[in-house]
Amino acid sequence: MIPYELISELSMKTPSKIVLLVMDGLGGLPRPETGLTELATATKPNLDALARESICGLSTPIVPGITPGSGPAHLALFGYDPISCYVGRGVLSALGIGFPLEATDLAVRANLATVNDQGVVVDRRAGRISTEKNRELVALLRQIKIPGVEIFLETESMHRVVLIFRGPDLSAALSDTDPQQVGVPPLPCTALEPSGQHTADVVNQFIAAARQTLKEHHPANALLLRGFAKYPHLPQFGDVYKLRACATATYPMYRGLGRLVGMDVLKTGETFADEIATVRQNWADYDFFFIHYKYTDTTGEDGDFPAKVRAIEEVDRSLPDLLALGPDVIAVTGDHSTPSILRAHSWNPVPYMLRSRYEVSDSVEQFTERACQRGTLGRFPAMQSMLMLMGNALKLEKYGA
Amino acid sequence: MIPYELISELSMKTPSKIVLLVMDGLGGLPRPETGLTELATATKPNLDALARESICGLSTPIVPGITPGSGPAHLALFGYDPISCYVGRGVLSALGIGFPLEATDLAVRANLATVNDQGVVVDRRAGRISTEKNRELVALLRQIKIPGVEIFLETESMHRVVLIFRGPDLSAALSDTDPQQVGVPPLPCTALEPSGQHTADVVNQFIAAARQTLKEHHPANALLLRGFAKYPHLPQFGDVYKLRACATATYPMYRGLGRLVGMDVLKTGETFADEIATVRQNWADYDFFFIHYKYTDTTGEDGDFPAKVRAIEEVDRSLPDLLALGPDVIAVTGDHSTPSILRAHSWNPVPYMLRSRYEVSDSVEQFTERACQRGTLGRFPAMQSMLMLMGNALKLEKYGA
Repeated sequence: MIPYELISELSMKTPSKIVLLVMDGLGGLPRPETGLTELATATKPNLDALARESICGLSTPIVPGITPGSGPAHLALFGYDPISCYVGRGVLSALGIGFPLEATDLAVRANLATVNDQGVVVDRRAGRISTEKNRELVALLRQIKIPGVEIFLETESMHRVVLIFRGPDLSAALSDTDPQQVGVPPLPCTALEPSGQHTADVVNQFIAAARQTLKEHHPANALLLRGFAKYPHLPQFGDVYKLRACATATYPMYRGLGRLVGMDVLKTGETFADEIATVRQNWADYDFFFIHYKYTDTTGEDGDFPAKVRAIEEVDRSLPDLLALGPDVIAVTGDHSTPSILRAHSWNPVPYMLRSRYEVSDSVEQFTERACQRGTLGRFPAMQSMLMLMGNALKLEKYGA
Repeated sequence: MIPYELISELSMKTPSKIVLLVMDGLGGLPRPETGLTELATATKPNLDALARESICGLSTPIVPGITPGSGPAHLALFGYDPISCYVGRGVLSALGIGFPLEATDLAVRANLATVNDQGVVVDRRAGRISTEKNRELVALLRQIKIPGVEIFLETESMHRVVLIFRGPDLSAALSDTDPQQVGVPPLPCTALEPSGQHTADVVNQFIAAARQTLKEHHPANALLLRGFAKYPHLPQFGDVYKLRACATATYPMYRGLGRLVGMDVLKTGETFADEIATVRQNWADYDFFFIHYKYTDTTGEDGDFPAKVRAIEEVDRSLPDLLALGPDVIAVTGDHSTPSILRAHSWNPVPYMLRSRYEVSDSVEQFTERACQRGTLGRFPAMQSMLMLMGNALKLEKYGA
């Protein structure tokens, strides 16, 4: 890891433009019937053509074997050490909905859930209730008052709520109340260090009150909290890389991740074509474009192999419009793998390609997990990507005489 | 990074001989007309034959994306962490002209520059004046006296001068006076820690006097200083590796880099054949031979693709004479890439081959950037090279029981 101060010293403002296209959960695993992964199954002439012009490899989001969440996986792609720069889920959720989080606020993700008459969790997501229903319940929960703290509740979507406590001396060193399994009761919130006891008491008071409020609202009759966190202070893209960077993402979480590192968040639509249109409209104003495509991940998490194939093909169709903007350097990769057969994020390495006029291209002919194994980048830590993009955009001065 | 103490503990004196041949700026990029790099264009049967007997790979001088100067790039090949073992520009410049720097000397690079009547920098390199004019002005500047310090000025070339202050308690914790841009005045030299105030005063007195001296010598009417540095104390080759090491180089900078890590510097001629002859004459006296070949870099920096091809071919012609000496282990690589199409050092990985009787050879048939991608060494940090050389020379004991 190179110190941020050194990167900042070497970084130069230049007119060259960098695109980082993250296809969330891109990497997959072969379907037993065909032996082919989602990428290898998809018809994607444009991605394959780009691979032929690129240097390719497999990126390791964190370290081999570790499955990352979206936060660390993106921070790595943004050049941060994903272990030392941890960002809690609560903060990611708050950023995702654009909540104006203050430095001393304590944020946590709250899931509406179902408990039975014995208080045992039977559905951690309350049957994925509608976002509309979520809003109704959030309106009720907002009436809860705890002395000494201000409480904010915001609907994320479906069963997902963000909960923010504002007050003096709040601690984020708290255990989750989400037991991460059904068949057991929610856990009490406990302080992980003595100074957190007051905050744990506040949280437990809130949870008890919420149970009362939600009592008659089966299936959404409980709240499960996880990821207590305060706002981290990450070195900002503008300072470290001297970039005017923007984020284009259809999901709030990824807009929040961009904002966290100092990117402007662009308003965009629902489809990849909408995202490309947004990038086109803002092309003159930025020199770094983070574009996040979500559906390769959601379809993988649904275990829907054909849908993930179609999601890849959706990107492929619009890729020429993105390339037509003429980025000097473009990388296409995922933040992590989400194989349909696992229905979850995984530790597997992630296909990666970088096109620049200043690299010796390799022999990779297709953008697949297997083909990228033979690429010149080999297997590399995702956090090395940013400096490769910067170097290829001729935005880094020589280090040392 | 393995601690030097451990390497020193494991290292053994043995009669085996290691050659490290550094072809400066070796790595290149394809010329658009042919799609071939300088290495792929050159006729180099001897280098290719050696590649077939070697294990090959691509070395990363610092980290992917970072373009190194000669100093850090060589320190990495010598086994030092190029980030933590930083050698300042002033020292490299002094080494470059062969100045006998003492441990307490303060060295800095001084550029002759042009300021206008308002004292604003209009050309940071004084129109790249001739080296002859530089010598005339240096002769004038040598007349400046500051009480309590001895001052040395030496012409590097064109607008480049090395400035050395000798005296008690000089500090290198000083800010540059080169503003790194035109349209603003030179910066004052400021102390970056309180103990540097006296030295900053000396430097500012010198700068003021130099302005007076240069007043009538437009376009070279000012000095811009950067890279204040003192001689670094790097663990020495003799101590860390128990090697009797020597450096053969036609350019002063590389002789200086060898001296910095404890190599004896051998007197040699101008050509690669001269360098091989020097190595031959000294073959009995050393067990590590650092041979530096400069012209692959100078031709790359000139943007002269055919000349870089010819420089590679010059090495190829004399390579059999070097191999005839019978080194137990030989590595051929570059310190960094200098693609002719970039006319500058670059971040690109560098072809590397190591021949030893104790490695499983790979399928690489040619010594080119593309072929080395498929080598058994893969892509690896240049600072790993030294221990690979030592291990293959059977100069390292087993670590641990």
